[in-house]
Amino acid sequence: MDSRPTILVLNGPNLNMLGVRQPEIYGRETLGDIEAMARERGADIGLTVDFRQTNDEGELIEWIHEARGTAEGIVINAGALTHTSVAVLDALLLCELPVIEVHLSNIYARESFRHHSYISPAARGVICGFGGRGYLYALDAMTRLIAGSED
Amino acid sequence: MDSRPTILVLNGPNLNMLGVRQPEIYGRETLGDIEAMARERGADIGLTVDFRQTNDEGELIEWIHEARGTAEGIVINAGALTHTSVAVLDALLLCELPVIEVHLSNIYARESFRHHSYISPAARGVICGFGGRGYLYALDAMTRLIAGSED
Amino acid sequence: MDSRPTILVLNGPNLNMLGVRQPEIYGRETLGDIEAMARERGADIGLTVDFRQTNDEGELIEWIHEARGTAEGIVINAGALTHTSVAVLDALLLCELPVIEVHLSNIYARESFRHHSYISPAARGVICGFGGRGYLYALDAMTRLIAGSED
Amino acid sequence: MDSRPTILVLNGPNLNMLGVRQPEIYGRETLGDIEAMARERGADIGLTVDFRQTNDEGELIEWIHEARGTAEGIVINAGALTHTSVAVLDALLLCELPVIEVHLSNIYARESFRHHSYISPAARGVICGFGGRGYLYALDAMTRLIAGSED
Amino acid sequence: MDSRPTILVLNGPNLNMLGVRQPEIYGRETLGDIEAMARERGADIGLTVDFRQTNDEGELIEWIHEARGTAEGIVINAGALTHTSVAVLDALLLCELPVIEVHLSNIYARESFRHHSYISPAARGVICGFGGRGYLYALDAMTRLIAGSED
Amino acid sequence: MDSRPTILVLNGPNLNMLGVRQPEIYGRETLGDIEAMARERGADIGLTVDFRQTNDEGELIEWIHEARGTAEGIVINAGALTHTSVAVLDALLLCELPVIEVHLSNIYARESFRHHSYISPAARGVICGFGGRGYLYALDAMTRLIAGSED
Amino acid sequence: MDSRPTILVLNGPNLNMLGVRQPEIYGRETLGDIEAMARERGADIGLTVDFRQTNDEGELIEWIHEARGTAEGIVINAGALTHTSVAVLDALLLCELPVIEVHLSNIYARESFRHHSYISPAARGVICGFGGRGYLYALDAMTRLIAGSED
Amino acid sequence: MDSRPTILVLNGPNLNMLGVRQPEIYGRETLGDIEAMARERGADIGLTVDFRQTNDEGELIEWIHEARGTAEGIVINAGALTHTSVAVLDALLLCELPVIEVHLSNIYARESFRHHSYISPAARGVICGFGGRGYLYALDAMTRLIAGSED
Amino acid sequence: MDSRPTILVLNGPNLNMLGVRQPEIYGRETLGDIEAMARERGADIGLTVDFRQTNDEGELIEWIHEARGTAEGIVINAGALTHTSVAVLDALLLCELPVIEVHLSNIYARESFRHHSYISPAARGVICGFGGRGYLYALDAMTRLIAGSED
Amino acid sequence: MDSRPTILVLNGPNLNMLGVRQPEIYGRETLGDIEAMARERGADIGLTVDFRQTNDEGELIEWIHEARGTAEGIVINAGALTHTSVAVLDALLLCELPVIEVHLSNIYARESFRHHSYISPAARGVICGFGGRGYLYALDAMTRLIAGSED
Amino acid sequence: MDSRPTILVLNGPNLNMLGVRQPEIYGRETLGDIEAMARERGADIGLTVDFRQTNDEGELIEWIHEARGTAEGIVINAGALTHTSVAVLDALLLCELPVIEVHLSNIYARESFRHHSYISPAARGVICGFGGRGYLYALDAMTRLIAGSED
Amino acid sequence: MDSRPTILVLNGPNLNMLGVRQPEIYGRETLGDIEAMARERGADIGLTVDFRQTNDEGELIEWIHEARGTAEGIVINAGALTHTSVAVLDALLLCELPVIEVHLSNIYARESFRHHSYISPAARGVICGFGGRGYLYALDAMTRLIAGSED
Repeated sequence: MDSRPTILVLNGPNLNMLGVRQPEIYGRETLGDIEAMARERGADIGLTVDFRQTNDEGELIEWIHEARGTAEGIVINAGALTHTSVAVLDALLLCELPVIEVHLSNIYARESFRHHSYISPAARGVICGFGGRGYLYALDAMTRLIAGSED
Repeated sequence: MDSRPTILVLNGPNLNMLGVRQPEIYGRETLGDIEAMARERGADIGLTVDFRQTNDEGELIEWIHEARGTAEGIVINAGALTHTSVAVLDALLLCELPVIEVHLSNIYARESFRHHSYISPAARGVICGFGGRGYLYALDAMTRLIAGSED
Repeated sequence: MDSRPTILVLNGPNLNMLGVRQPEIYGRETLGDIEAMARERGADIGLTVDFRQTNDEGELIEWIHEARGTAEGIVINAGALTHTSVAVLDALLLCELPVIEVHLSNIYARESFRHHSYISPAARGVICGFGGRGYLYALDAMTRLIAGSED
Repeated sequence: MDSRPTILVLNGPNLNMLGVRQPEIYGRETLGDIEAMARERGADIGLTVDFRQTNDEGELIEWIHEARGTAEGIVINAGALTHTSVAVLDALLLCELPVIEVHLSNIYARESFRHHSYISPAARGVICGFGGRGYLYALDAMTRLIAGSED
Repeated sequence: MDSRPTILVLNGPNLNMLGVRQPEIYGRETLGDIEAMARERGADIGLTVDFRQTNDEGELIEWIHEARGTAEGIVINAGALTHTSVAVLDALLLCELPVIEVHLSNIYARESFRHHSYISPAARGVICGFGGRGYLYALDAMTRLIAGSED
Repeated sequence: MDSRPTILVLNGPNLNMLGVRQPEIYGRETLGDIEAMARERGADIGLTVDFRQTNDEGELIEWIHEARGTAEGIVINAGALTHTSVAVLDALLLCELPVIEVHLSNIYARESFRHHSYISPAARGVICGFGGRGYLYALDAMTRLIAGSED
Repeated sequence: MDSRPTILVLNGPNLNMLGVRQPEIYGRETLGDIEAMARERGADIGLTVDFRQTNDEGELIEWIHEARGTAEGIVINAGALTHTSVAVLDALLLCELPVIEVHLSNIYARESFRHHSYISPAARGVICGFGGRGYLYALDAMTRLIAGSED
Repeated sequence: MDSRPTILVLNGPNLNMLGVRQPEIYGRETLGDIEAMARERGADIGLTVDFRQTNDEGELIEWIHEARGTAEGIVINAGALTHTSVAVLDALLLCELPVIEVHLSNIYARESFRHHSYISPAARGVICGFGGRGYLYALDAMTRLIAGSED
Repeated sequence: MDSRPTILVLNGPNLNMLGVRQPEIYGRETLGDIEAMARERGADIGLTVDFRQTNDEGELIEWIHEARGTAEGIVINAGALTHTSVAVLDALLLCELPVIEVHLSNIYARESFRHHSYISPAARGVICGFGGRGYLYALDAMTRLIAGSED
Repeated sequence: MDSRPTILVLNGPNLNMLGVRQPEIYGRETLGDIEAMARERGADIGLTVDFRQTNDEGELIEWIHEARGTAEGIVINAGALTHTSVAVLDALLLCELPVIEVHLSNIYARESFRHHSYISPAARGVICGFGGRGYLYALDAMTRLIAGSED
Repeated sequence: MDSRPTILVLNGPNLNMLGVRQPEIYGRETLGDIEAMARERGADIGLTVDFRQTNDEGELIEWIHEARGTAEGIVINAGALTHTSVAVLDALLLCELPVIEVHLSNIYARESFRHHSYISPAARGVICGFGGRGYLYALDAMTRLIAGSED
Repeated sequence: MDSRPTILVLNGPNLNMLGVRQPEIYGRETLGDIEAMARERGADIGLTVDFRQTNDEGELIEWIHEARGTAEGIVINAGALTHTSVAVLDALLLCELPVIEVHLSNIYARESFRHHSYISPAARGVICGFGGRGYLYALDAMTRLIAGSED
């Protein structure tokens, strides 16, 4: 029986296309590669990683709802919904779990409409600019949040 | 045969979680409780109440479309979509039915990004801050709008 | 001896002209009609309704001051002072009574300078767009606030 | 019996101090001087001029209310209320009389917070920068508005 | 020999079309009618009225330059250049003559981009909303400015 | 075998209601009519037109993803998502196909919140205000973009 | 005798330099080439095309004035005046003809000060980003506007 | 005979409620206590303190008018009118007396709409955050302003 | 042995030049004069006054750090750093001592960029416009804050 | 035969009035004086100076167009068009010559609407505040730009 | 001889106080603790960690200058200078090294003036909200940037 | 004995790195080269050039203070402090010497946060975009300011 805590790793719109498009710019890393890395890291540090992607805001919200009672924390890269969705913010606020926000690129060095995140006020921390590796840092930090060593 | 007018009562993202989360803050009233109250009140004042919730903007829009020809009015608590969705506004504008906007809490006393509603210009009236009871006031007001006594 | 709780129903500038001007637009309901409805509803639900109107900000503030110790709640339609008076906000904040804000029309569907209310942060709830009937909903909600059933 | 139309000439806060303060800047013309000029001009062109001043927004609003049925037009120099009072705007809108806005100085060449007038949308025309003489132009223009020659 | 002071009355873009377009909205008064009225009034009060119109910003600026030494004052309706031309402002500032700004309609009750006038800071006074009659008030006021009775 | 290039013509929320609502305002043209016209024009100029509508942002994004490898260009009328969806913008940016933005009405002459399009930076061109005919111009322009004659 | 309707095609500042400058960026198409295409298309669809260019705002305004009574519609690429000229807007508003706005490039994907068009509120439609071909779409749309088939 | 200079100490809306409301927050000091302290301090430093409170903007303005000729300086805590009244600013500007602005709490550490004071440009100095004691500092500073030792 | 509480009186950039420059404007009072006054007042009311000035933000921050454990309160005139330094705000927030903000002139009556103080949220009170005397009021108020009589 | 490079020195609206108006403020230097200085300096450093002034935006644009092929660089003082003309910016961008922007006064120390220059993005450098001498610095810098020693 | 790459870890104003102040809020971790952790992690992953703190913007800039030629990367927590210093941004831009920005708390969930970082455009990535552990993630990410595996 | 006037040439943060970084972009000119040029030019035109650079705002301010009595003018390139330091502005205002602002690049053609200079209001003139040569123009202009020929 698996008694390891489950971490929901959620990915928003367009992230399924990662690595497919413009590899000379975004690198060749696909979301599948990131999922594999995240699962492996999870296994190493005693976490069950439940990794998902959706292009649908409604589905993303419902996954966050489900997290209550089934997961111990949420790592989220909401993609472009980061900048426009109050509904995702509200879902994160009500799930009452520790949340860590991840972005592949440094959104604060891009177009000005990408500098604002509706989601950040619901997050314990934000990591951006490190590609798929950012998810690993988030998982590491999540273990500590769950363990209560940093709160 | 039921000849009573049907009122569509629509609820947007995250409202399904009502009463589950932080009852010390939001109270213990669930959306099911509100639905029951609304149906009962509808029965009392001669309305059929069709009460629904979705976390999906697309589904919400389609329910509004369906209202044309099947319902006589719409009571809507669009949740966080209130503040971000021009598409819901457009759906309400084109359905050509009386619309009443409801919010459980007083959105005008919360964060500034919750003060603006895209939906209000399509509504006859707005009720906020009275929890589930606000839906009852909305149903009452709707009877009068339908009866044409206040227009 | 009257032991029923007193609710102060306050009306701000220009509301005395209601029903007199442009009845084809605003309807024929006068402030006197609304007062009569409100008193009757108060009688029905066990409230003494003290209904007043003034065009003077100073008088409005003093009525709010008097409410401390003499009334159990305030229903207020501050008219245009809604949008400009920090002094009325401060009076409402210091009276330490439940406050409900009412507007006859849907101010959020009118000129943009009418979308902001200084008063809303002091109110438990806001009702707008239902003409005189909004006062009745406010009285109903007030009974519950006083009874402590929704706080 | 006087069958000449009555024009209400209303003056807002601080205008009673005209000519008393800083005559080297504002000139030696007092509000009494302007009233005399206005009455004389009224007599010449067949108008009864009812000239008033108040420092109280509430009183100003009530004078505008009274104008319905007793006056044919309003000339108003609302002083600083021009820039802050939505309530005076509302009173002017509901009185359903022709309104002309006057200012002694050119408000558009002063501090930026004096460039905006809440009242202008209710006025047929605006005259500013000509001291007391502006009132005479307003009376002249009012005769024509009443006569319907320019509407 | 004509020793009467000359007043330059300048009209900017599109004013030549006055009375031609939409007479049901703007009235049937043409710029020629206004010119005739202005000349007649000028004759009555001892002014030579030099009345001109141009659709060209450059020409308008040069007419203002010429005014130095040949005219005693400028009455200007700069049309849409009012809202966009710093160059006309600069020309008015350097001509060192009294300037009065006129508009046919009440620009402060129209679209918000028409509320700002670059020219007003160079003007002694502003008259708007009285059609062609505004020019007559401006000429009257100009006589007094020239006579130094109001400065 | 069909070797003609496929153009995806995508329609966002509420466009399925076209022609149904307020025909006196929007005309009687339905989305079906536009689809027929577009298919016919496509046939004439050698394009396969794949015409779709959805009220769901997630579905719209997935259709854009699918376009990679199956279509040669995208004509998009994103409806109200035009003004709110960064996710649709990102989908268009990553599909690396020529994109043309179409609107039935002239959005730049409507409410100010409709003047901004998140999508335009991803488009080669924008056509608005010509009803269904705008789609035909877009198809014509698309042929040329594909042929590389204008790039 | 030519009974075909005349369409005035107006081009604003700097468009005479088209094709001369930076052909690697803007293409080699000159304004003369566009004029030839437009005339030919006009001949095909039964329009007389009167094609003009000026660098002078005043001249542009006067051409619009002349259109009243001599032309049936205006296609306008006002160049940079699009973003700065209220006077051109006013001229278009008063000419009471159908107007279509054209831009060679997609102005909504350029510097932010090019996103706003003063002219759009006077236009039935806007076409941008298709180079000279945009003029042809505009002529086609104009025929329909004149025929009254789309209004 | 009293030849000591008179200082008008003016208090605006809601300050009469001081000490009554929420003593755990605002302290138990009443306006009466402050008045007593101020009179005593006045006596010590040779000033007659004329201490007043009103909830009425009109009355406040008239008290400022009266100050001309009867008082040597004004200490003012305009309460919420600080943030909204241009009319009080104008009254202070025209009274031509030294003015000191006082606030009980540090308004610059409260809600952002309390950071702006219309009155400050008319004041020699501002003191806030020291409760009733701030009035004593103001009186002390006023003696020096009157004595001309700091101007 | 000195057991009197120490108050750190800190002065930011350019204040060392006080009295040297433009004495006709700023008066002849030097920072040395203010220091002498402050020390004398401190002696009178039982405070040790540690009075310093620096033009260096880093040094100012370190002095604030040192205050922890060595001083009982901070009176600060941060000069122009008031308007630009979040680092000084942070230092004041972390020192956990009562802070009073002083300015020689009334900054709220100067250029608009001087109206905002980053430091005010960390201060109990603000005194401005009274020259060196403001420091004395601040010391007096500080004694009371330390004594706990006003907290 | 003159083989020296030609520099176009262009002056915009109102600069022809230089030295005529308010010599006590702007100095007695006329545009003719500046032209003479510029020509002389040009002769010294091997440049042909073609010095022009116009009050007409259209003429200014055409002079810039002509510069292609006839001049090696442009020195421009666009006067008030600096702040309002996108058309002049576009003309400068397309002429593909080195451009230096000159202003007689320090525009960054004047009214805020003079702080923004549409033209600066097209310029290699900006010189302001040195009167006619600024033109000489511009000519000197231009020689170096042409020689390619600083690019 | 040490051939391991050196990473400069820079800390800005107030960070020296970490752990000293309000341990119940910020935790008991001191900057010394973080330095020790960072050195240890550096040793593990083959980096020499040069860890520094300063309260002085000038010193911070000079340390960044020195990094050229002596370090392979910079990890920077600029403290409050993050929000105010363009000079630190410029230093980072010119040092031409990979930069990672770290913050102890989630600045995007704090006061709005802490949401903007001048430094982010110079950084490859940003990590905030994880206390001292964020530095370790930054060092790990830096190894990869140096190794060129993620660029 | 040297009786030539001394001009302080001050350089702010990061300018010491000039020529070191990215020579392909900024050129190979170092600050030492500019100093040499400036000294040589100074010698030619009879000025003693005191040329300094600092990365420290506090030191820059103190150098400006020292200038009083020891220098006749200040040429300043404040680097990034231009955009953020009110303290440097204040120092320049109080030194009561002629000031000329220099920038190596055209700051008005760079990022928008570099368009605003706090320092410009204290400067007689601004020169930007000409690299080190701009300092020479500034020295030349300074001679004239000192000689009083242009003031």
